[in-house]
Amino acid sequence: MRVLLVNPNISDSVSDLIRAEAQRSASPGTEIEVLTAPFGVAYIETRFEALLGAHAAAQVAAEHHARFDAVVVAAFGDPGLAGLREVLPVPVTGMTEAALASAHLLGHRISIIAISQRIQAWYREVVESYGFGSRLASIRALDRPISAIGGVQQEHAQALKALAERAVVEDGAEVIVLAGAPLAGLARSLHGQLPVPVVDGVSSAVRHAETLAALKPGRARSGSFAPPPAKPHRGLHPAIARLLDHPR
Amino acid sequence: MRVLLVNPNISDSVSDLIRAEAQRSASPGTEIEVLTAPFGVAYIETRFEALLGAHAAAQVAAEHHARFDAVVVAAFGDPGLAGLREVLPVPVTGMTEAALASAHLLGHRISIIAISQRIQAWYREVVESYGFGSRLASIRALDRPISAIGGVQQEHAQALKALAERAVVEDGAEVIVLAGAPLAGLARSLHGQLPVPVVDGVSSAVRHAETLAALKPGRARSGSFAPPPAKPHRGLHPAIARLLDHPR
Amino acid sequence: MRVLLVNPNISDSVSDLIRAEAQRSASPGTEIEVLTAPFGVAYIETRFEALLGAHAAAQVAAEHHARFDAVVVAAFGDPGLAGLREVLPVPVTGMTEAALASAHLLGHRISIIAISQRIQAWYREVVESYGFGSRLASIRALDRPISAIGGVQQEHAQALKALAERAVVEDGAEVIVLAGAPLAGLARSLHGQLPVPVVDGVSSAVRHAETLAALKPGRARSGSFAPPPAKPHRGLHPAIARLLDHPR
Amino acid sequence: MRVLLVNPNISDSVSDLIRAEAQRSASPGTEIEVLTAPFGVAYIETRFEALLGAHAAAQVAAEHHARFDAVVVAAFGDPGLAGLREVLPVPVTGMTEAALASAHLLGHRISIIAISQRIQAWYREVVESYGFGSRLASIRALDRPISAIGGVQQEHAQALKALAERAVVEDGAEVIVLAGAPLAGLARSLHGQLPVPVVDGVSSAVRHAETLAALKPGRARSGSFAPPPAKPHRGLHPAIARLLDHPR
Amino acid sequence: MRVLLVNPNISDSVSDLIRAEAQRSASPGTEIEVLTAPFGVAYIETRFEALLGAHAAAQVAAEHHARFDAVVVAAFGDPGLAGLREVLPVPVTGMTEAALASAHLLGHRISIIAISQRIQAWYREVVESYGFGSRLASIRALDRPISAIGGVQQEHAQALKALAERAVVEDGAEVIVLAGAPLAGLARSLHGQLPVPVVDGVSSAVRHAETLAALKPGRARSGSFAPPPAKPHRGLHPAIARLLDHPR
Amino acid sequence: MRVLLVNPNISDSVSDLIRAEAQRSASPGTEIEVLTAPFGVAYIETRFEALLGAHAAAQVAAEHHARFDAVVVAAFGDPGLAGLREVLPVPVTGMTEAALASAHLLGHRISIIAISQRIQAWYREVVESYGFGSRLASIRALDRPISAIGGVQQEHAQALKALAERAVVEDGAEVIVLAGAPLAGLARSLHGQLPVPVVDGVSSAVRHAETLAALKPGRARSGSFAPPPAKPHRGLHPAIARLLDHPR
Repeated sequence: MRVLLVNPNISDSVSDLIRAEAQRSASPGTEIEVLTAPFGVAYIETRFEALLGAHAAAQVAAEHHARFDAVVVAAFGDPGLAGLREVLPVPVTGMTEAALASAHLLGHRISIIAISQRIQAWYREVVESYGFGSRLASIRALDRPISAIGGVQQEHAQALKALAERAVVEDGAEVIVLAGAPLAGLARSLHGQLPVPVVDGVSSAVRHAETLAALKPGRARSGSFAPPPAKPHRGLHPAIARLLDHPR
Repeated sequence: MRVLLVNPNISDSVSDLIRAEAQRSASPGTEIEVLTAPFGVAYIETRFEALLGAHAAAQVAAEHHARFDAVVVAAFGDPGLAGLREVLPVPVTGMTEAALASAHLLGHRISIIAISQRIQAWYREVVESYGFGSRLASIRALDRPISAIGGVQQEHAQALKALAERAVVEDGAEVIVLAGAPLAGLARSLHGQLPVPVVDGVSSAVRHAETLAALKPGRARSGSFAPPPAKPHRGLHPAIARLLDHPR
Repeated sequence: MRVLLVNPNISDSVSDLIRAEAQRSASPGTEIEVLTAPFGVAYIETRFEALLGAHAAAQVAAEHHARFDAVVVAAFGDPGLAGLREVLPVPVTGMTEAALASAHLLGHRISIIAISQRIQAWYREVVESYGFGSRLASIRALDRPISAIGGVQQEHAQALKALAERAVVEDGAEVIVLAGAPLAGLARSLHGQLPVPVVDGVSSAVRHAETLAALKPGRARSGSFAPPPAKPHRGLHPAIARLLDHPR
Repeated sequence: MRVLLVNPNISDSVSDLIRAEAQRSASPGTEIEVLTAPFGVAYIETRFEALLGAHAAAQVAAEHHARFDAVVVAAFGDPGLAGLREVLPVPVTGMTEAALASAHLLGHRISIIAISQRIQAWYREVVESYGFGSRLASIRALDRPISAIGGVQQEHAQALKALAERAVVEDGAEVIVLAGAPLAGLARSLHGQLPVPVVDGVSSAVRHAETLAALKPGRARSGSFAPPPAKPHRGLHPAIARLLDHPR
Repeated sequence: MRVLLVNPNISDSVSDLIRAEAQRSASPGTEIEVLTAPFGVAYIETRFEALLGAHAAAQVAAEHHARFDAVVVAAFGDPGLAGLREVLPVPVTGMTEAALASAHLLGHRISIIAISQRIQAWYREVVESYGFGSRLASIRALDRPISAIGGVQQEHAQALKALAERAVVEDGAEVIVLAGAPLAGLARSLHGQLPVPVVDGVSSAVRHAETLAALKPGRARSGSFAPPPAKPHRGLHPAIARLLDHPR
Repeated sequence: MRVLLVNPNISDSVSDLIRAEAQRSASPGTEIEVLTAPFGVAYIETRFEALLGAHAAAQVAAEHHARFDAVVVAAFGDPGLAGLREVLPVPVTGMTEAALASAHLLGHRISIIAISQRIQAWYREVVESYGFGSRLASIRALDRPISAIGGVQQEHAQALKALAERAVVEDGAEVIVLAGAPLAGLARSLHGQLPVPVVDGVSSAVRHAETLAALKPGRARSGSFAPPPAKPHRGLHPAIARLLDHPR
């Protein structure tokens, strides 16, 4: 099985983190490939940046999906995920959706630990758009400058762990989700150090992608996840145009 | 006062409808300009198409906003609206949000009449993302092929009126929203023919944009509608890059 | 255009504040008239007082509406608004509903700043009755005695500004609504002093009333905002009886 | 124990139905008195009429409560109930709230059978304002003219029973509430004829009023059900003025 | 009238508290009997313990219900209540459901005071399963070891009162529910000492059971509270098997 | 890896279906064992039967879990799941929760196809207790007698497929969940025959159990999924007593 992870941000250092955790968590025999967005920002924190990242993720997935059994949108917040689910012929998972799917199986109330104050509003809107708001205990976030996005988890490891502990004690979190591709792998290094289960987005997204590819639930030919109806378009990247003109 | 309406679709015929209704409904002294997306599809019905339209709307608004007192995202579903509200220095309204704001002042339960079956799921998600789901009586939509998007309201006038009547009788609608820029102006021509108030997105969006520009409630310098934090980016349209580098 | 604002309280000093802000914010050519309730209390803080104010507002509106193109219920909490919308032949707006409609177009999470602790529960119930509870970040209120209701905004300006700042920092408010007719005009004097947009109820209600009167969405002849069915009544004020006997 | 039931409508024939069912369902030793509103309409179907009925109920309760251990607002929709709970020194129940409290103990999903189409929207808003919307399976209502309000249950007995049966079969109702004082006693005559439990508002309101009077849970001296703060007022009925000036 | 209260825990000391409060609060002529679970734990705090208590309560009720007009599940959290409502021929109430039904008639926002930190999550899930979450202001709980479950209310009376006071001041509670059979009778001894009404689960459950038995709303022969369909079973307690084989 | 599936019903024929589908869907190297409840009913349709099945599942899991890396509660409705998650040292999944977790990754609106009319209310309550109600498009169920529970999917294959098709067309389902262990494997045989993805509970529960066992998110030592506090108990099955006395 081959799984493509698309980093909707331009940060190669984060793509490295994603690749490392994806490889550690994939089942035996799964091949992992990580591609980085050709345009966009270093890391998405806002709705406007997500809008850019969604298009970038769509373009990368459109160009490269044909060689893969499943695709992962490898940024928390899942920019472009629902749209890609309409057009790609293979299962698509995203880090937020997958992490929450795992977390739902481990406890009732879930807290998300994030890398910046600003990112919280967007994360909350994404969680609520999935209908999962009632399970969200809190979102807590670092409130300090990030010197290099690929080094956040080393630089701020103690602060991140402290945020998780406060989420447990003060917010009643029964599961912790470490949010954001820059934190990929941190759950693994914190193993046993927190009093509740800890979930990582990359490993969850890879595992759930494998499961969907293995169980073969079938494609949508009807409803809002069927391919978009054919219609005139203009000025689109050829790979995107191809998805619209020749739907799966 | 000058108001820019951005059509996130590539359809010039729909831009004409938008312009006509915007001019009819604007206050005396308001100048209207309508611009059409340089890339995208003929009319957005799905999440994937909305993702493309959001980027196109952002690009047009980024390039042209400086000459205007307010900007309107002139497609129902409001692609790009929340993101643009973060980065533009002037008020931004969208057709769905504005039509619902008007409708909320006219009755409790609201039905949306739409131009295609497929478009309903996306509309519903947008309405729910605004927290307005409890006021939504129903979405009803045409189920016939659209021969030319700019001619929908002429071609299907009776069917659209019949859908509105069913929404009143069967769904308990107390207000009707005629959804989609291709229906701009239809509320005006149906005046007096339906037993409940009828709201149009373009006129609502223009009027609310004027009101916000006139009342000058102030810009967000804090919270999730403040400009995004500065950070590295790559490959973006110069006008978008300028918005990120030199926030209002 | 002529707009009638009805103060459901007996406080002439507050009617003066309402009149001043309504005139400042109305469009050119709009004539404003403010009338004060003939019975009731100095300012409504509770459900029981709102019940009295609703009847008083209904009576004033019933007597005087014929000369106006739109009516505004000029107390936050909107006593009598939904009922008047059933019986009056012109659009009716209320301060809470209108302020929230404006605020919804400026940010996602909204905080209300109020003049007394006691008033908060009633405000919350009104906001929730409109289905807008999910957008409400918080209600914060003064906790000090009010010496003269018409002088609250002068006497407590700093405390009110501080409450708004706490709502932004602690509650995540992205828009502030300054609630209550006694605060009419305060948003204007605080302009630029708060890090998020600030909305005033009187100006919002006047502007939205103008918009509804201009767009002419049509009257409800069906559904729960149509005039009440004819039936026997007894002991009602003649103007109210007339509304029931001769519906628009 | 003495219980006062206030009919917020002017219909003496309905007061007779209320009195008969209240006496049948009261505990041994409870004395029942029913008073009719001095002003208002024959039966409340709309928000505007409810606004009038609320004031009328308040005036009757203000004048007469001193001789009673508990007060019942004897119209479905509970006009004035929450306000009276602030000002009266004894427990107050209402037909809707009490019927739902009983129904909640008998099944999960509840349907309300009402006497007119128009009345449904108001009932629904009341149920939702109590936070009980998620238990509401449906509201179904007669769609025929009412010749005499006191004779509805005789005239339309079969139609009302048929509505209840449809609510069970089509809406999944597990409990039926027969709504409206004009239906007082109908649950008793339908006993055993419906496949789910049937609840009557008058008997529930009387019984719950007795329970609250017996258990003596204490009065609110704090929070939003404490008496309103003292303040100037003008033009109020002397009994209402007395409640405001000399709170319990 | 004869009412059976089933203590789903093995604690005879708590059964004594239940009996005492039930007798104090029952109407004249009502006979009270309290039975203790033959298996289970000393007091239920978790979902796993509730699962055991539900079966124990079911067994006791199955064996003994025939002599009674109504049955009460006498543990907060109501283990087994909904299931017993399907199979027993008489009304069944539970302490949580009944306390909330009473509390709903006394104020809008309700706080629950509980005997242990751990118990809060289970209580919250039960309240939300009833659809009553929007009325819940908070759950506050003792955070100290319980030396003897039957002596909690004496040992921790001041701490429990302080929790209730904090719920009023900090959480906006308008009604206090003292939760858990070990607190039976505490509301009575706190009478007049708290600024809002206080509700006790045992007295509420007994009174509401009496009311349902008196009003005779009828049994469910349809819907999800009708007796379970007949089917093979194995290894069940004879009294439970009898309920399944010979439904009411 | 070794996974234990516990059938909370007494039906060996259904255990065979569970075993077959679990083996087909497990990853290479996973060993499957299925155990059948020693007491209970043939198939759970009601809350009362679920109460019995929960205890039976708990007893089987308590006796046998030590040899396994993960446990699956193999009945739709997940009787006992949340309780077992508190006490077992290994991950526990249930069919409903796992099927929904899979379905959430495939579409937005989900319909559940069930084997009997009566079972629907219980399923709905379980889905809502997980906070997943907003994603539920509908539950549709067979309305015909079941001659042998192990043969439902053969006997009623066409009717079940027709229900799924109606859920897509009439309810807007974007994913179908075939509910109930008696339908284990049906999704596989319907592959490609429905226009939307189809999810099976057994395969989802097995795969998610494997994922949780592989990712090792850690155990809860705090919060409501930590082991219950030690306390007196009586009359419990020795294996259950051992879980309470010697928590993981």
